[in-house]
Amino acid sequence: MAKQNIINRTLGVNFNNDKFATVNVWAPDATEVTLQTGNAHLTLIKQERGYWALDTDKIKAGDTYWFKVDGKQLPDPASLLQPEGVHGPSEAVDLKSFNWTDQQWKNPLLADYIIYELHTGTFSAEGNFKGIEEKLDYLIDLGITAIEIMPVSQFPGDRNWGYDGVFPFATQNSYGGPQGMQQLVNACHNKGLAVILDVVYNHLGPEGNYFGRFGPYFTDKYHTPWGAAINFDDAGCDEVRRYFIENVLMWLRDFHIDALRMDAVHAIRDFSPVHILQEITEHVAQLAQQSGKTHYLIAECDLNDARYINPVQKGGYGFDAQWIDEFHHALRVAAGGERNGYYTDFNGIADLANAYQNGYVYHGQYSEQRQKTFGTKTDGINGRQFVVFSQNHDQVGNRMLGERSSQLFSFGMQKLMAGAVMISPFLPMLFMGEEWSETNPFQFFVSHTDKKLIEAVRKGRKAEFADFHAEGEAPDPQAVSTFENSKLNWALPHQGQHLLMLNYYKTLISLKKQQPAFKKTDRNNMSVKVDEAAQTIIIQRWTDEQRVLCLLNFSKKDQELNIGGNNNQPWQKLFDSAEPKWNGPVASP
Amino acid sequence: MAKQNIINRTLGVNFNNDKFATVNVWAPDATEVTLQTGNAHLTLIKQERGYWALDTDKIKAGDTYWFKVDGKQLPDPASLLQPEGVHGPSEAVDLKSFNWTDQQWKNPLLADYIIYELHTGTFSAEGNFKGIEEKLDYLIDLGITAIEIMPVSQFPGDRNWGYDGVFPFATQNSYGGPQGMQQLVNACHNKGLAVILDVVYNHLGPEGNYFGRFGPYFTDKYHTPWGAAINFDDAGCDEVRRYFIENVLMWLRDFHIDALRMDAVHAIRDFSPVHILQEITEHVAQLAQQSGKTHYLIAECDLNDARYINPVQKGGYGFDAQWIDEFHHALRVAAGGERNGYYTDFNGIADLANAYQNGYVYHGQYSEQRQKTFGTKTDGINGRQFVVFSQNHDQVGNRMLGERSSQLFSFGMQKLMAGAVMISPFLPMLFMGEEWSETNPFQFFVSHTDKKLIEAVRKGRKAEFADFHAEGEAPDPQAVSTFENSKLNWALPHQGQHLLMLNYYKTLISLKKQQPAFKKTDRNNMSVKVDEAAQTIIIQRWTDEQRVLCLLNFSKKDQELNIGGNNNQPWQKLFDSAEPKWNGPVASP
Repeated sequence: MAKQNIINRTLGVNFNNDKFATVNVWAPDATEVTLQTGNAHLTLIKQERGYWALDTDKIKAGDTYWFKVDGKQLPDPASLLQPEGVHGPSEAVDLKSFNWTDQQWKNPLLADYIIYELHTGTFSAEGNFKGIEEKLDYLIDLGITAIEIMPVSQFPGDRNWGYDGVFPFATQNSYGGPQGMQQLVNACHNKGLAVILDVVYNHLGPEGNYFGRFGPYFTDKYHTPWGAAINFDDAGCDEVRRYFIENVLMWLRDFHIDALRMDAVHAIRDFSPVHILQEITEHVAQLAQQSGKTHYLIAECDLNDARYINPVQKGGYGFDAQWIDEFHHALRVAAGGERNGYYTDFNGIADLANAYQNGYVYHGQYSEQRQKTFGTKTDGINGRQFVVFSQNHDQVGNRMLGERSSQLFSFGMQKLMAGAVMISPFLPMLFMGEEWSETNPFQFFVSHTDKKLIEAVRKGRKAEFADFHAEGEAPDPQAVSTFENSKLNWALPHQGQHLLMLNYYKTLISLKKQQPAFKKTDRNNMSVKVDEAAQTIIIQRWTDEQRVLCLLNFSKKDQELNIGGNNNQPWQKLFDSAEPKWNGPVASP
Repeated sequence: MAKQNIINRTLGVNFNNDKFATVNVWAPDATEVTLQTGNAHLTLIKQERGYWALDTDKIKAGDTYWFKVDGKQLPDPASLLQPEGVHGPSEAVDLKSFNWTDQQWKNPLLADYIIYELHTGTFSAEGNFKGIEEKLDYLIDLGITAIEIMPVSQFPGDRNWGYDGVFPFATQNSYGGPQGMQQLVNACHNKGLAVILDVVYNHLGPEGNYFGRFGPYFTDKYHTPWGAAINFDDAGCDEVRRYFIENVLMWLRDFHIDALRMDAVHAIRDFSPVHILQEITEHVAQLAQQSGKTHYLIAECDLNDARYINPVQKGGYGFDAQWIDEFHHALRVAAGGERNGYYTDFNGIADLANAYQNGYVYHGQYSEQRQKTFGTKTDGINGRQFVVFSQNHDQVGNRMLGERSSQLFSFGMQKLMAGAVMISPFLPMLFMGEEWSETNPFQFFVSHTDKKLIEAVRKGRKAEFADFHAEGEAPDPQAVSTFENSKLNWALPHQGQHLLMLNYYKTLISLKKQQPAFKKTDRNNMSVKVDEAAQTIIIQRWTDEQRVLCLLNFSKKDQELNIGGNNNQPWQKLFDSAEPKWNGPVASP
């Protein structure tokens, strides 16, 4: 692969410091490529390895343009903005023109991340970056330290979770475009919040996907559940790899993003000697060296394979952390949630204890669900490398009706689940609204324009939940109401139990941040004792200066637990979710 | 995965020391499994993980048997012998009954392997293991130290290269079956020859393939060019992995095979945390520890990825060596062979020099043929880890007419190519008959019985060579004559130039074995100087005691080369292929 430019974006239309444009597009099989902007038709010059390029003063920031590849008019695969959506022209953007004021910002230690996952379209009434910005003080007050924004790459229409994005470099126009994104990150940094961006490198969405017209971005060597697999190891892959590495670098460098959450990396198939994820890690390390800034890479991965988060020197891909869905599954079953589908592999409280101890519940046992031995050991992996949660967009939204925990569990159980996440040695993540026990659902919604695709999505969604139809109809993903119903209700956190839950979360978060034994992410200084009959777990965590004891009662009744201790150093109660102030039955002694 | 039994075969029908049979077959979705032998119908008892088992005295070695899976009569997937071919019953074999007399045998150092690849059916007039045994003295006299036998697992009919095998545990009945194989290995060892067996774990053949009736041996997650991919990482893979690991262990333990050559491991797709090849390596290491014997694993791999031969501690799969087709390609182009197909990536003499230096010609450069950057560095890899050749079954047989070098290159060039292989720091391999410049071709042949399959193979073969039809018809792979024409002509090595070539090879091999600088496989003690204009390469190799200088002239004319040296230690001529005794034009000074 040609040496990657770490300092500058090189694909699409970019401006140098004199506002002179450099145009560069990969179209290896084309015989003619032109750029059309206004009345200008600029012929690009063929370069090595299938690139077409031009330096020109004929295009300025704010101009719209098309590429014409062998006569076919197409938007730019590296477009930064699609002002008229996925089928329209691209707009030239000067990423360097934003006036950053976050020079004082320093990315916190990963161990200090308390993550808040949000979806731009449904987080606020406005449904855009401005809407998020207006809530930053609220989030600071809640105590979180990092927001995680679901994917913002341009998708069809203005309602989508973000995983149907088809312009990895373009920030969704209806959210506020690239400048809106820069503005949001700048505001976050100035308020002391880190920003994690969710990016999707395992597939591209089905509508507005013009990549095949440019080059072999896809391969049929592998499948993904969501469409053609990205070509990371087949003919032409050098340039595809470059494209995605450049995408990573752009977000971190030009948008000041602190960390990327990479969607479903288990669906990124790559038999190259150096896996694309490792190559990404290595380039991010180069960027960090050059900029002096710290960035984190967090993988969503369901392979329970420590290789993804092991350092490169140990044969790993070098990601900083990964999501642990299995902690969620074990917690949910322990809480009395249903046990169908992938939950069948989880036995509840014993597996929750297992998750506290190993991160991966399956770390080498036979999985009935997967019908194979599954997972690696996690010895030596720090707790900060595992992101845990009691809810997230998938676990909520992939239910037929998108019910949050508030609709499925008692108030008491919701409190217990929140506590279970917060006392772990892992990185805690909240899903927007869980902190006030939001009652609105988070459902699956799209706003495609392709009628066949709309029908296919509708049918797919119905088929997925065929067994549940007795319990109601799957909401129509294309309906505006499905989207609107999924918005947070910002009136709730001021009311009754919702306000109480909000204060409960604030208190928990503050404990997590202030108590040395909770702040630590060392997994060695922890003991986990499970009593399956009683449905209780006793967790101890300690540092040199402090030892905390956490009693988790998943049963429906009050219980007495022998917690040992001695008279010289009696236990002191830090927090008690059963107290009447938290709407509990009665305070423990 | 359940702990693998290292000491005993556990699948199929096996006999303990009291000749009592243990029957075990994996059929996870079956509701009833019986074993039928003679008039006995024995019901197997369901075990954990989909196995069905029985201990019985109702079946003896030599009895034929079927499994009946939910009423369907099928041969045993772990059959050791198919006396009536792939569609017939299996025969119970007591592998422990063979009377081994090779207790004194010790597998040589890998660096001392001089390999002779042969195909059992066409090597001798008899076309079986006995036929090989009768030639062992010839092979010893030639100087080779290891024979490499193309796959012997049961295939349809009695004419096949072996890559259509469908019973990985069954030794081809027409070759002499398992006892014939044991007899051959025993004879080899008693004569001082190591035995490498070619095994195929990337697919199973198209005819007689009953695996799907037993369990999920295949996955549609990946493709291979030859049929369904083996399921090494999908649901049910634990038992498939066990099956192939047991196959490896059986050949090494029960057949005393010294090394396995594993076919096209690049087509073994496995995203498990521990790759099946690494798991195989680890089990072979366990076997070696238990038996005190040494075994080698040699991969055929076209990925130029050192991971396959790096040790496990360095993140590799731990294979001992791999084939280097690129040495062949570079050599062939340097020799003036055609440059179409995969040869387009090779420029001749400069790439040959490159191969001497790096093993992989492509070790990180852009490959036009593959359209991507290709290959890893090979620093630190010993020369004994690369197997090189100027011909092999594929390079000969995958030509439309199966011509050997004798039909394509001058006598002089054949000699040069032989020398080029033998002076390398790598493991040399000959393809049967090349040592006497055999003139018969080695063509592609099959003996399927499925008419549709026969037609498909015929058509596929014709299509593959569509561009070459002007130069003649592709031989019919199903015709007996194609097979017969591919047999070695053992009259030749006694005649004229053929005898001379044989003696030439003997002399070369003896130099390789006796000269310290040639014996060594250290790649550091070597210099390679290429002159593209003159089409010459000068190679120096040395040890503390000796320095040898090799002059390779790929041009059509005599050339003078300045070889330096000084008067105190003048060069002494060891060998000169241009001498009249080798039918050369004139001896060098």
